[in-house]
Formats: sequence, structure tokens, C-alpha cells
Amino acid sequence: MAPHPRNDWLEESLGALADEEPGGQERLARLGRQLAFLLELDRAKSVLRRTYLTDGSRRENDAEHMWHACVAALVLAEHADGEVDPLRLTCMLAVHDVVEIDAGDTFVYDTAAQADKKAREERAAARIFGLLPPDQEERLRDLWEEFEEQVTPTAKMAAAIDRLLPLLMNRAVGGRTWSEHGIRADRVISLNSQIEKGSGELWRVARQVLEDAVAAGVLEA
Amino acid sequence: MAPHPRNDWLEESLGALADEEPGGQERLARLGRQLAFLLELDRAKSVLRRTYLTDGSRRENDAEHMWHACVAALVLAEHADGEVDPLRLTCMLAVHDVVEIDAGDTFVYDTAAQADKKAREERAAARIFGLLPPDQEERLRDLWEEFEEQVTPTAKMAAAIDRLLPLLMNRAVGGRTWSEHGIRADRVISLNSQIEKGSGELWRVARQVLEDAVAAGVLEA
Repeated sequence: MAPHPRNDWLEESLGALADEEPGGQERLARLGRQLAFLLELDRAKSVLRRTYLTDGSRRENDAEHMWHACVAALVLAEHADGEVDPLRLTCMLAVHDVVEIDAGDTFVYDTAAQADKKAREERAAARIFGLLPPDQEERLRDLWEEFEEQVTPTAKMAAAIDRLLPLLMNRAVGGRTWSEHGIRADRVISLNSQIEKGSGELWRVARQVLEDAVAAGVLEA
Repeated sequence: MAPHPRNDWLEESLGALADEEPGGQERLARLGRQLAFLLELDRAKSVLRRTYLTDGSRRENDAEHMWHACVAALVLAEHADGEVDPLRLTCMLAVHDVVEIDAGDTFVYDTAAQADKKAREERAAARIFGLLPPDQEERLRDLWEEFEEQVTPTAKMAAAIDRLLPLLMNRAVGGRTWSEHGIRADRVISLNSQIEKGSGELWRVARQVLEDAVAAGVLEA
């Protein structure tokens, strides 16, 4: 993939440094790929999710969500049922949605869009992680694939956090995403029951929050 | 600090679970503090920085910046000059600006606001990290304090990344923050030369980018 046109200035500065330092070209090319990847990631800040901020002011974007999930990993890792490496969990959540820069956010309740999600996200992963030097491409892509495969306790805990945060945020704004999309309690409970695979404790709380939301009229029975 | 009123629903659900399970109160109180902290962190998404997104559409917020810095840590840690733990670096950057929820973002070129920044941020750290259970409060506060003290190689590398990202983003949008605030090359170079304390390599590139920005008329000499 050709460098994004907006990065011409970066290529030029790296080129100037390489001219000054014969033998440094490979090192600078590596750094150039890393910086191009980081500039590309800026676009995750413009991928909107369905969740609203807890003050209801606007919808959340992917960058904000990944950050929130990262910190949640640091704080909630102890509630994982399997053996989880909290730092790997943090790193996994830091990159779990970057493919959405190309593939877009697929609303979890949109079954039609879920159908081709995998193919869209695979292409996105190849392009976006492919901006990195090969060793780092492999490392970050491994984190994303482990998350997608949902086999390891770390991946299951990451998915639990990925579900729990929007559930709590949605409850905090009076169930706005649920009511806007006409989603009822049975679907919310069924979809979020995946939290239990990562953490029985978090699911017990999430389920209680949902049941109380129904009782409070915030979520339609 | 009393729980934020918007979290009454969470307290109620946790209370209902505690009633069902005598002996679980302490565990549920701990989880309650963790979730209250995470809901509070949502506010970092509304703290605006001076930096614009690379598409120029709007200003960046603290949550987005912390996420960007987290991923940059995963990718750029190898360029640190001292001995740096990449995972600690990632965690440090994941929380390095949460105090700005209360203290606000202090523009690095605003010398008046820099004067009382420390006192404002100390109060914010006490309140925000204080929402957590004490052991986690200590762990996350330690990360933030290490960052603020700028003594360890990890803290210096974190500061280098914290500076490098807005510098690159600002260059990508034609130096908009610099020109809006009338900031010239000498101040930009002087302030960002701190990058060198974390990574000579990153500073060499950043300095070249700044010099080329002057030559391109994007940054005033």
C-alpha cells in the first residue's frame, strides 16, 4: 500500500535524515512504517459506535472505546475466571477495534451486517497492521486474532469488558441505544450473556443491572 | 467523595446482589468502586486538547490521546534510550492524563496555567484514583506519579511519546495549532526537545520534521 498522501512530509524528513546518515536507511524505513501506522490509527477517532457518552452529549468513537477498555482491563482483570495475563489483556483491548477504520463499526444487534463482518475485517487487518514492520504486524495481528477467535481466557475476558462497558454506559443514559433501535430485554440479555464466558462475577452484576433496568422501565421487557 | 448521582442505579443493583449473598458485601463493594471509577473516566472523552485530528475535522480529546499514546508505546518502545518495560510504558500512558477530568488540559505553551498545574492535578489525582479500592488506587497513582516525576527511563519515554504524537498530528494539518496560537519554531523546538531525554532517535526525526516544517512555511521561523 502506497503511503497515505498526507504523509509526504514525513517521507521527506526521513529521506533527508537517511541522506545524512548512510547505513541508517533500514532503521529509518522501519521507523517510517511505525509512524505511518500511528498516523493511520488517528482515523479510529472518527469511527462512531452506537453507544452514547454517559453525559448523553454524543456518540462514542472507537479510539475512546479502546482506551476505556484498556483501563478497564487494568482494573477488572482480577474478575476473570480463567488464567489471564492482565497486561496482554490491556494490549489486546488497545488494538481490538482498529480494523473498524476500514470495516466500520458493526452494530452487535445488526444480524445482516454481522454476516460479512469477518471478511471485511480480515481485509482491514491485512492493510492496517500491514503498515507496520513485519515483526510488529505479526505481534499486533496475533493479539487481534486471539481476540476474534474467543478461545483463550484472555480473549474471553477482553470480550466481557468489550460488552460490559457499553452496557453500563447505555444504562447510565437511560437505555438510549436500546430504545432508539427497539431492542428488548431478551436480546440484550442473550447477547450480553457472553460476558459470563470471561467472568461469572461481571455477568452476575451485568444481569442484575439489566433486570433492574427492566423494572425501572429503562429497558423494554 | 459521594458516588456520582448518575450511578444510583449501579449502587442499587449491587445492593440487591449483596442482599442475595450474605458475605459477598465486601467483594461487591470492591467491584462497585472499580465500576464507579470506570464510569467516571468516561468524562475524559469530553476534555478537549489543542491538537486537531489529522483530517482537521475537530480537536482531539484526552481519551483519544491516551489511546493513541498507548498503541504508540507498543510500537515505539524499542526506540527508548534507557531500559524501558514496554508494558509498564503502555499502562502509564493509558492513565497519564486522567487527572485532567478535574484539572483540565493545560496547554503546554501556556506558562501562566502551567504555574498552578501541579496543585490542580494533585487534587484531581486524589479524588479520581481515590474512587478505586486502595490497592488499585496506589498502583495507578504510582504510574501517574512516575510519569510526572520524569526520572525513570519509562517516564521519559512516555513523555517523548506524549510530545511526539501531537507534533506529528499538528504537522499533518499544516501546523494549525501553532499558527492559531502564534507559536514560532524556537518555542516548538525548545519545548519538544524534551523528547530527546526519552529517545535520541525520535528526537532526531521530530527535529527534522520541525526544520522541514519551517522550510515548507508550515511553522513560523
